Amino acid sequence: MTAAQAPARGFPPAEFEARCARAQAMMAEAGMDALLLTTEPEVRYFTGFLTQFWQSPTRPWFVVLPAAGKPVAVVPRIGAECMARTWVEDIRTWSSPRPEDEGVSLLAEALGEALAGGTLGLAQGPETHLRMPLADFNRLFDRLGGAQTADATPILRALRTIKSEAEIAKIAHICGVVSGVFERLPEFVHEGLSEIEVFRRFKTACLEAGADDVAYLVGGSGPGGYGDIISPPSERRLAAGDVLILDTGCVFDGYFCDFDRNYAFAHADEAARRAYAAAFEATDAGFAAARPGATCAEVFAAMHEVLAAAGSQGDDVGRYGHGLGMQLTEWPSNTASDATVLEPGMVLTLEPGMAYAPGCVMVHEENIVIREDGPAYLTRRAPPELPVIGG
Amino acid sequence: MTAAQAPARGFPPAEFEARCARAQAMMAEAGMDALLLTTEPEVRYFTGFLTQFWQSPTRPWFVVLPAAGKPVAVVPRIGAECMARTWVEDIRTWSSPRPEDEGVSLLAEALGEALAGGTLGLAQGPETHLRMPLADFNRLFDRLGGAQTADATPILRALRTIKSEAEIAKIAHICGVVSGVFERLPEFVHEGLSEIEVFRRFKTACLEAGADDVAYLVGGSGPGGYGDIISPPSERRLAAGDVLILDTGCVFDGYFCDFDRNYAFAHADEAARRAYAAAFEATDAGFAAARPGATCAEVFAAMHEVLAAAGSQGDDVGRYGHGLGMQLTEWPSNTASDATVLEPGMVLTLEPGMAYAPGCVMVHEENIVIREDGPAYLTRRAPPELPVIGG
Repeated sequence: MTAAQAPARGFPPAEFEARCARAQAMMAEAGMDALLLTTEPEVRYFTGFLTQFWQSPTRPWFVVLPAAGKPVAVVPRIGAECMARTWVEDIRTWSSPRPEDEGVSLLAEALGEALAGGTLGLAQGPETHLRMPLADFNRLFDRLGGAQTADATPILRALRTIKSEAEIAKIAHICGVVSGVFERLPEFVHEGLSEIEVFRRFKTACLEAGADDVAYLVGGSGPGGYGDIISPPSERRLAAGDVLILDTGCVFDGYFCDFDRNYAFAHADEAARRAYAAAFEATDAGFAAARPGATCAEVFAAMHEVLAAAGSQGDDVGRYGHGLGMQLTEWPSNTASDATVLEPGMVLTLEPGMAYAPGCVMVHEENIVIREDGPAYLTRRAPPELPVIGG
Repeated sequence: MTAAQAPARGFPPAEFEARCARAQAMMAEAGMDALLLTTEPEVRYFTGFLTQFWQSPTRPWFVVLPAAGKPVAVVPRIGAECMARTWVEDIRTWSSPRPEDEGVSLLAEALGEALAGGTLGLAQGPETHLRMPLADFNRLFDRLGGAQTADATPILRALRTIKSEAEIAKIAHICGVVSGVFERLPEFVHEGLSEIEVFRRFKTACLEAGADDVAYLVGGSGPGGYGDIISPPSERRLAAGDVLILDTGCVFDGYFCDFDRNYAFAHADEAARRAYAAAFEATDAGFAAARPGATCAEVFAAMHEVLAAAGSQGDDVGRYGHGLGMQLTEWPSNTASDATVLEPGMVLTLEPGMAYAPGCVMVHEENIVIREDGPAYLTRRAPPELPVIGG
């Protein structure tokens, strides 16, 4: 299928060198002597360590980024071989599970070396969390004699929001693969199928088209519209007059797309068609606004103006799109208050949504990259009018 | 396919009532006035709230279990409709994202009501983490005026390790579906395919057979054996003399299987065949030992004796199996030091593994449920000799 045009997997060591150097420059400026990384995207960003094994909550995984030089991995022995295939050289392991000392003493030693009494950077802000037991976190600080910490969120956010060309190529690839699946959807989805069967066919089609995984697929259907966009599929069968939304985060080499498509069956009522057209037009307006130097709030305002004029009755999603990359959603958010300034290399979703009738919302989503001369679509644009399958 | 025999989705309210009542009895005994739940399995266990939306790190989700009565959900507005379909009645929402107050004041209010100055139970122990930003966690405690906390891990663990019949039926179903896919694998996997293509075909086959998702698939291949069992697939092509392992966590209605299968291609060398036979025999030994009243350490010892006698050169996995259910891996662990006593209703994996040559490990895994009269397999047993495809 499209596998022939797929970008190379992985990254050359220069990519990781550049990420670490940028981080270390910001750490120096912020007075941080080491970063402690505990979550999947944090660890992968600096090391290239890619595994689905993170789904097991048993074992913590730690990476220490010192003020200079390569990251140090402190990981369960089961991950040693996989980590050894990355550019990381200093890999320290323990036999895990070992709840009485689940890497804590080994990590304290590595941090002690890197900090030398200095300040530890740790993500503590929006969209972050600490992936280790709280009791172990407290034990770690006892071991360290109460190291000073600082919030590393601004550094991680500044780094990860600007994608490299290699990262953009992976996102663009999966956007292209899934755009094709959505375009072919009328060939394999029709009235009478249950939502569960629709989801199954869609996932299979994505895998066959070249997605590594359909990590995220939500949606809904209902007569004249759907009311909720985060639910799993039900046994409900598609019928004439329904509107269906599928919203998917498929993955290629650890990078996500995140976009949706809407379809009506047999016929579409006027309210649904108008709401679709408004969301489509709002996307155009957001795209036009998404130039380097503009803020996310300005992109939001451009979309909101269109939706308000179309009679939007509100939006429970709480934003009109967000960052995209190693995670399904990343900083920033297209909200009225997000003052993030768009820069070349940012990858965003435009996701205008509105309630247009009791229990009916319309959400549309495309993925874009910000370039020096303006935005570019990574997804192939949805049709301007609500597509109708069958009838 | 097998969809016709699938158990009903969801649970009756009585299931959640029983879970909450058991938790509240243990809370009373431990002197906890409310539990704060922040992770996907914790929230789902008490509410039934099932969505893949957890993959987005933007928004926290909170559930407060008071000393008596139903749980209280404090969730972003985007989740209100999905939460309203559960048995939960008290659903408090905020428009999210709102980083300046990401649910913190709303949660502080709900916790203040439930605690009334008492002690807050919070998971802090092995295999747990806190899914909210650390800075917000600190803000929450400032708001609460520094509430006393206690570790809720023992309560959550005691509850979740004993599965209800409805939970066991879901796990048994997905084990059966995937057992069938593994049995048919020689029909769609052969020499010359890349690991990436093998993974793709396997995932597609699982979806078509009735899995909701192939949430976890790792594996490896190599001449005479593989060295690592947590990696994503590579472009490496299967060749005569290779041994391939696939280890998968497929999902039905939010419940996992977790087991693996090994295959040789064209021919299998003596060392690999012996290691396979040893892992198979160790599984039998673990099964025989896994009776109510036995400890995980005893199950481990029974398996270890077989592997040691077969010349095991070590095991980087660190355990010979673990709990299984709403997550790919759950407490307890089959290790030399885990004193957990097996009880009816526990679902476990038996996962003996050993290194048998430089760079070669053999891992075998089956899923079992503990019954009053002994263990029962949920997976259909692997063949006793290393299967050889083609040749």
